[in-house]
Amino acid sequence: MLKTRVEHDAFGPVDIPADRYWGAQTQRALAVFEIGTERFPACLIHAFGLHKMAAAVANLKCGELEPGLAQAIVAAAAEVRSGAFDAHFPLTIWQTGSGTQTNMNANEVIANRANERLGEALGTKRPVHPNDHVNRSQSSNDSFPTVMHLSAVMELEDRLLPALGALRASLQSRAAAFADILKLARTHLMDAVPTTLGRGFEAFAAQVGHGIERVEATMPRLLSLPQGGTAAGTGLNAPAGFAEAFCAEASRLTGLPFRPNPCKVEGMAAHDALLELSGVLNVIAASFIKIANDLRWMSSGPHCGIGELVMPDEGLTSSIMPGKRNPTIAEVMVQAGMQVAGNHVTATMAGASGSFELNVAKPVLIYNVLQSIRVLADSARTVAERVIPALEPDRDRLARQLDAPLLAATALNPHIGYDQAARIVAHGKAHGCTAREAAVSLGILSGDEYDRLVDLRRMAQGAG
Amino acid sequence: MLKTRVEHDAFGPVDIPADRYWGAQTQRALAVFEIGTERFPACLIHAFGLHKMAAAVANLKCGELEPGLAQAIVAAAAEVRSGAFDAHFPLTIWQTGSGTQTNMNANEVIANRANERLGEALGTKRPVHPNDHVNRSQSSNDSFPTVMHLSAVMELEDRLLPALGALRASLQSRAAAFADILKLARTHLMDAVPTTLGRGFEAFAAQVGHGIERVEATMPRLLSLPQGGTAAGTGLNAPAGFAEAFCAEASRLTGLPFRPNPCKVEGMAAHDALLELSGVLNVIAASFIKIANDLRWMSSGPHCGIGELVMPDEGLTSSIMPGKRNPTIAEVMVQAGMQVAGNHVTATMAGASGSFELNVAKPVLIYNVLQSIRVLADSARTVAERVIPALEPDRDRLARQLDAPLLAATALNPHIGYDQAARIVAHGKAHGCTAREAAVSLGILSGDEYDRLVDLRRMAQGAG
Amino acid sequence: MLKTRVEHDAFGPVDIPADRYWGAQTQRALAVFEIGTERFPACLIHAFGLHKMAAAVANLKCGELEPGLAQAIVAAAAEVRSGAFDAHFPLTIWQTGSGTQTNMNANEVIANRANERLGEALGTKRPVHPNDHVNRSQSSNDSFPTVMHLSAVMELEDRLLPALGALRASLQSRAAAFADILKLARTHLMDAVPTTLGRGFEAFAAQVGHGIERVEATMPRLLSLPQGGTAAGTGLNAPAGFAEAFCAEASRLTGLPFRPNPCKVEGMAAHDALLELSGVLNVIAASFIKIANDLRWMSSGPHCGIGELVMPDEGLTSSIMPGKRNPTIAEVMVQAGMQVAGNHVTATMAGASGSFELNVAKPVLIYNVLQSIRVLADSARTVAERVIPALEPDRDRLARQLDAPLLAATALNPHIGYDQAARIVAHGKAHGCTAREAAVSLGILSGDEYDRLVDLRRMAQGAG
Amino acid sequence: MLKTRVEHDAFGPVDIPADRYWGAQTQRALAVFEIGTERFPACLIHAFGLHKMAAAVANLKCGELEPGLAQAIVAAAAEVRSGAFDAHFPLTIWQTGSGTQTNMNANEVIANRANERLGEALGTKRPVHPNDHVNRSQSSNDSFPTVMHLSAVMELEDRLLPALGALRASLQSRAAAFADILKLARTHLMDAVPTTLGRGFEAFAAQVGHGIERVEATMPRLLSLPQGGTAAGTGLNAPAGFAEAFCAEASRLTGLPFRPNPCKVEGMAAHDALLELSGVLNVIAASFIKIANDLRWMSSGPHCGIGELVMPDEGLTSSIMPGKRNPTIAEVMVQAGMQVAGNHVTATMAGASGSFELNVAKPVLIYNVLQSIRVLADSARTVAERVIPALEPDRDRLARQLDAPLLAATALNPHIGYDQAARIVAHGKAHGCTAREAAVSLGILSGDEYDRLVDLRRMAQGAG
Repeated sequence: MLKTRVEHDAFGPVDIPADRYWGAQTQRALAVFEIGTERFPACLIHAFGLHKMAAAVANLKCGELEPGLAQAIVAAAAEVRSGAFDAHFPLTIWQTGSGTQTNMNANEVIANRANERLGEALGTKRPVHPNDHVNRSQSSNDSFPTVMHLSAVMELEDRLLPALGALRASLQSRAAAFADILKLARTHLMDAVPTTLGRGFEAFAAQVGHGIERVEATMPRLLSLPQGGTAAGTGLNAPAGFAEAFCAEASRLTGLPFRPNPCKVEGMAAHDALLELSGVLNVIAASFIKIANDLRWMSSGPHCGIGELVMPDEGLTSSIMPGKRNPTIAEVMVQAGMQVAGNHVTATMAGASGSFELNVAKPVLIYNVLQSIRVLADSARTVAERVIPALEPDRDRLARQLDAPLLAATALNPHIGYDQAARIVAHGKAHGCTAREAAVSLGILSGDEYDRLVDLRRMAQGAG
Repeated sequence: MLKTRVEHDAFGPVDIPADRYWGAQTQRALAVFEIGTERFPACLIHAFGLHKMAAAVANLKCGELEPGLAQAIVAAAAEVRSGAFDAHFPLTIWQTGSGTQTNMNANEVIANRANERLGEALGTKRPVHPNDHVNRSQSSNDSFPTVMHLSAVMELEDRLLPALGALRASLQSRAAAFADILKLARTHLMDAVPTTLGRGFEAFAAQVGHGIERVEATMPRLLSLPQGGTAAGTGLNAPAGFAEAFCAEASRLTGLPFRPNPCKVEGMAAHDALLELSGVLNVIAASFIKIANDLRWMSSGPHCGIGELVMPDEGLTSSIMPGKRNPTIAEVMVQAGMQVAGNHVTATMAGASGSFELNVAKPVLIYNVLQSIRVLADSARTVAERVIPALEPDRDRLARQLDAPLLAATALNPHIGYDQAARIVAHGKAHGCTAREAAVSLGILSGDEYDRLVDLRRMAQGAG
Repeated sequence: MLKTRVEHDAFGPVDIPADRYWGAQTQRALAVFEIGTERFPACLIHAFGLHKMAAAVANLKCGELEPGLAQAIVAAAAEVRSGAFDAHFPLTIWQTGSGTQTNMNANEVIANRANERLGEALGTKRPVHPNDHVNRSQSSNDSFPTVMHLSAVMELEDRLLPALGALRASLQSRAAAFADILKLARTHLMDAVPTTLGRGFEAFAAQVGHGIERVEATMPRLLSLPQGGTAAGTGLNAPAGFAEAFCAEASRLTGLPFRPNPCKVEGMAAHDALLELSGVLNVIAASFIKIANDLRWMSSGPHCGIGELVMPDEGLTSSIMPGKRNPTIAEVMVQAGMQVAGNHVTATMAGASGSFELNVAKPVLIYNVLQSIRVLADSARTVAERVIPALEPDRDRLARQLDAPLLAATALNPHIGYDQAARIVAHGKAHGCTAREAAVSLGILSGDEYDRLVDLRRMAQGAG
Repeated sequence: MLKTRVEHDAFGPVDIPADRYWGAQTQRALAVFEIGTERFPACLIHAFGLHKMAAAVANLKCGELEPGLAQAIVAAAAEVRSGAFDAHFPLTIWQTGSGTQTNMNANEVIANRANERLGEALGTKRPVHPNDHVNRSQSSNDSFPTVMHLSAVMELEDRLLPALGALRASLQSRAAAFADILKLARTHLMDAVPTTLGRGFEAFAAQVGHGIERVEATMPRLLSLPQGGTAAGTGLNAPAGFAEAFCAEASRLTGLPFRPNPCKVEGMAAHDALLELSGVLNVIAASFIKIANDLRWMSSGPHCGIGELVMPDEGLTSSIMPGKRNPTIAEVMVQAGMQVAGNHVTATMAGASGSFELNVAKPVLIYNVLQSIRVLADSARTVAERVIPALEPDRDRLARQLDAPLLAATALNPHIGYDQAARIVAHGKAHGCTAREAAVSLGILSGDEYDRLVDLRRMAQGAG
């Protein structure tokens, strides 16, 4: 038999497992919402710890909490922030659209833990009350969206931006290393003109670099917090200066310049800032799909593929084809991108669904945004560490690409005109000869003239 | 210090936690893929147990496995099917796009467990070898997509269809109960014509009923399994009759009429059948969003909303507004629908991404499809159990709706013509009088004629 | 100066270009909605003609219209159906979400044309009144969604299904022609095992064939029409038997078995049936993207690509690279698929957005669905006619694929076990020798044994 | 019989309608691509005119074109820019994924028109050759994506940003006008706490204002042009300084600071910048859906809806319910948002689909982006002009909202604690009395204390 204690809320008594720190509203929610298995990631729970720390300090500054209560709340909330109470947040994301149940869960855990630190039993609600003290000057209406922003920004700073930086650096390093390796460029997948292997990696690095810029461009609106709006953005029950004091403390604790959203309703009725971020994650996803697919194709075959790059061997192979080496990590990167693109549509629908003073698709929205950040960051880091530095060009194969018999014709355009160059290509195709042979045979150029005009390395460098 | 044992694969030795049943390929994958936290739901792992049971029986029938080995595999796989080994599937979905690592994980766990049952230590690979025996006549190329179909079909049968059935029944029951309650219909959200409260619930029930039909319409293609295709759909290394024997055993174990896909490549290079299912789940999601939003609006306010229905009180309230009652479960249903719509886009991109003989976005595809099934099923069940039966119409309020002064004019169209009816409405608006007063005052109808033509209850029944 | 005439509606007089058949409500709408350029496709306008024909006949049968008026309406509506009045439907899709303005436009054009045929001037509304007669027993609430279904079904029958049939036939023909051509299958884009070129085309044909089945599976719900629901699904002002008579006449005119939706509200408040269709179009789009990409890659290079197929030359080339031949039509097919996938998301949001008795995203929904049908049908037809029959395998190149030195090892699994086969592959890679040489050199098999076990053609046929 | 002339390209002679200025490649494309009806919007064709003007000037500066030819090209291209040749761009968007056919179309029209201006017949290709002169130093690979950027930026500047500015201004104006009108805020659609009508309009204005910021934040990457990359981003056949000269002239002609993309391949192999823009358009779409739905609901009913706002009457009404006034323009705004959200998914798939040096989903991508800009801009302008300024609050109804008997309890929290406030609400609900009566009856507060603590206007201002 599981040992239980009894807690009370406005609706009466509730049995709670004795070793759990949550309270009556959380327990009721567990019974109501037997739906799915998706939990908020730990970073959101930790951000709630941070949030309640900052709120207690702001309440102290504004004279809304006595120092003893404020200190007890800060200490308990710090433990939540540290991850020590993750197991006391049992709810899935399938809850009220305001995130109220998880806010209440945080209030209850922190109140119980604060009271325990002050020598009281769990469930007493004294001296620290979950609503009157932990939730002081707050509503779920402003606290939950504030936590949405806090957790997203911290995940960007701690996880995605470093991973994108590492990926860009690894790509730039290869771009430099491959700068002089000639290869054949492809347009429409078809043989086109000479280029360098490095140039493709420069483009990858540019894509990732722009991704970093894009994330940073969303920050002004993500750092803007609706805290202080309380119920329906009115600010009811929050003292003057609360929002500013909250942001100051959140900034002190994180080193990030959070500031109050001047229009509180905007920050709780809409989540355009998070949808904007999701849009940027979607761009990064598209970049990743492009990059990963290029890597897969460049290393394809090798016998009956393109095989101009060799992927590192991770020791993961086929269950039926012994020794087969597959581009497993690149496939993850593509799949991560697809997940993010789908998450983004959920975010769009959630973001568009607000009514009047409140958007009530908050849990599903932040769940998807945080998942997108995580899978992009982790796959970027893995690719940066395991794949990019270990790529090996197949130099023989790359060199052989340049034998394509007709690719040089483009370089002749400025000298002999498009129509004459087209005649050379047509003649070469019809007679199975090279562009040089065709040019001479058609009397358009002498061999010497041809050799002077066509230089693969110069073509690759764009000096026609 | 964690105790470990050593296992070997083609790439050499690997340290594995001593109490875990997985083997070398799983352990390597854990090291390579430190990405995200998303796991396959238990139902997919259990389906792998079922799959390997059916494969062992098929191998036995085809003479590919000795009875002793086959029995040992069946017994071990049955334990996986039962859920006893869930903790031995540690990988996330972020793995090779063929699902090979989870197939190998299943092979390894079952081989180890089978050998243990036969008195051998973990890691011996004898007498049961993960590839040669558990994976006998199979490839990940055909096994993983077969498990995708198996798990999806079983979740539909065990979870979604019953939940939809319960939801439809609860809605039909309310449609009957509310059949005689008059209310004002709204089009464009605006006052329209008299109708009944029951008619709206009939429409909800019809939507859900069509959802059931739609799921059933996908079954012919979902019951078609690519097992037997082995590597790249060639059937290499699978004996004649293997696909048929596999499907027969899978059907026997589940009671569902699985059958071989006649075109194996289609079943592994494309996942159109699962994308078709995802499209149906997307329709159900749209139905749910419509229904849940209607319920939310009908119970909105009540003071400054529509308030014609009263939602049941779940004891979940606001953190700042004491006693506030919110439509929490309906909000979950909407959010679940949004998740499914986003998952569907991921499924679309994954489904469209196959190349040549293999689609390599299998893990992300099936993860999203199974999540969609689960959240739709759970939210349908919760709404069916907790919300629909407890809805209470506010009869006073519904009756007062019918006082709308001008709504009767539509009924006059067939008798006096649209233009005269429009004159009555315009006159009523301009002079703040009822349609009856306007009709008489304009000399279009006598009061008696008006009363004979306009009967709200008859209007609600559509007999104009 | 443009000549005008004056028409009147309930709001007063309106100037209308003298040679246009539309009336006051259409003219007002033109002034209000100066938004975008997107028009309903002609098929929807023609379906409105059909619709008003069937409605007039139903009204005649039900005694709601005199024969003379009914005949005049039928004759005028038949002209709309024929396309003769397309230029008299000037509105874009950016109008009221019920499609009311286009319904009014149809009523006005048909009334004016009917009166003209009866010798009256445009704008008289006599003897045929747009609301009292052309719109008799109808509302936009039921007429517009009925036209949505009519136009979608006719486009499926007239355009998409024939195109899919032609595409499947062309693919099947190539599957037969290529049945004996050996090639190397690829999984994860990597060299896998021998297969045949025909097998890939079989899979394409199977995908397209399933697409046809999927379209047909949606028909029961698409053939179900909400006509007869009138305002808000009440049936107000429609006589008994109207819905049945309407469907009978629509069926007679089209040869398609339309029938009344038993739940009218469902057919106007939700558009699940069209969303279901959109989901099926989305599957077909995914199939097309897969098929077209495979064709692009198989014909890529040829020098530095895969080049196992040669695309037909359409005479379309590069603006800078003379004579370059690109897979232009395949690129259209991919782009068409992307358009359909995006349209589907619009359809999802539109379909989920109904409130109470009416969905008011009808124009955007049907616009996207009809566009999806059209671009899929046209690209399928074009590919079936121009690309598939003209594809040429490069037999030399396909034959050379089978030289891949290690691909045979998979066939050895059942005979020597996975681990020994893996040793052979590892040895071959390390020493640059063939699987045969490695097997002999490792003492695992004699050359004769090897030759007996490994037969590429038998492997391709799946008999290991 | 249509009169024709003959033009030649590398593939031979082609018949062209005599009065059309396009050439052989366009005519061939017309025959190949009988697909769909979607055309590029005129703004893209005009941007091509601008583009070829700038290219001719850059060629002149770089010594690649003689002044006479350059002047003739500039003059002809200016006519294309002006719209005079729109009818000579007959192709749909369903063409090669590089947009080559429309680039060729532009080259051909401009060459023909330039030659005509110089006294030559159409089709001579002398002295101005479409490839050698109009397309000089260019490839479709760089020209088409440059035109994509040019047209998008100009549409943003000319159409979307002004419309958003007008919408924000109209909303701000109403926020000011409504600043003192008390109303009841709703969270979860339920009665919450007093607020002001103006506050909601402030939030709308803030959303639109952020939308403007978001568009502007994308500009650095949109103003960056890949021109100069020519074939595959190599710069082959473009002289040194061409990209800079092109951007200088494009900037001079438009007043916008275009500059060369330092990584040409990035600008043609990926379209992340346009996808980023599409993501921002998607946020604006979500804002619009939120705003328009709020307006629809606030003006709903009015009898059986919320009816706190009255929408202007546009004279558009129901086909069956005379005089019914529907929120037609708001419905357009919602539908426009849905279209943009779907277009964005197409853009995502298109943007993610690049391979190697070229993305070949350019036409479908830019078509969707330009359509999104247009429908957002037009609907914003229409709402700003026709709806927002004409909204009328129903002051009686707004005042009556504040009678909600229990809404004041929230204000008591800080004074008596959440649990006591909850007791008051529960008592009030149970006994049907007001919060004041309950507080007194429960002995929690005297009537005077209650009146001091609860002040609706102060609550609305957030000073609890």
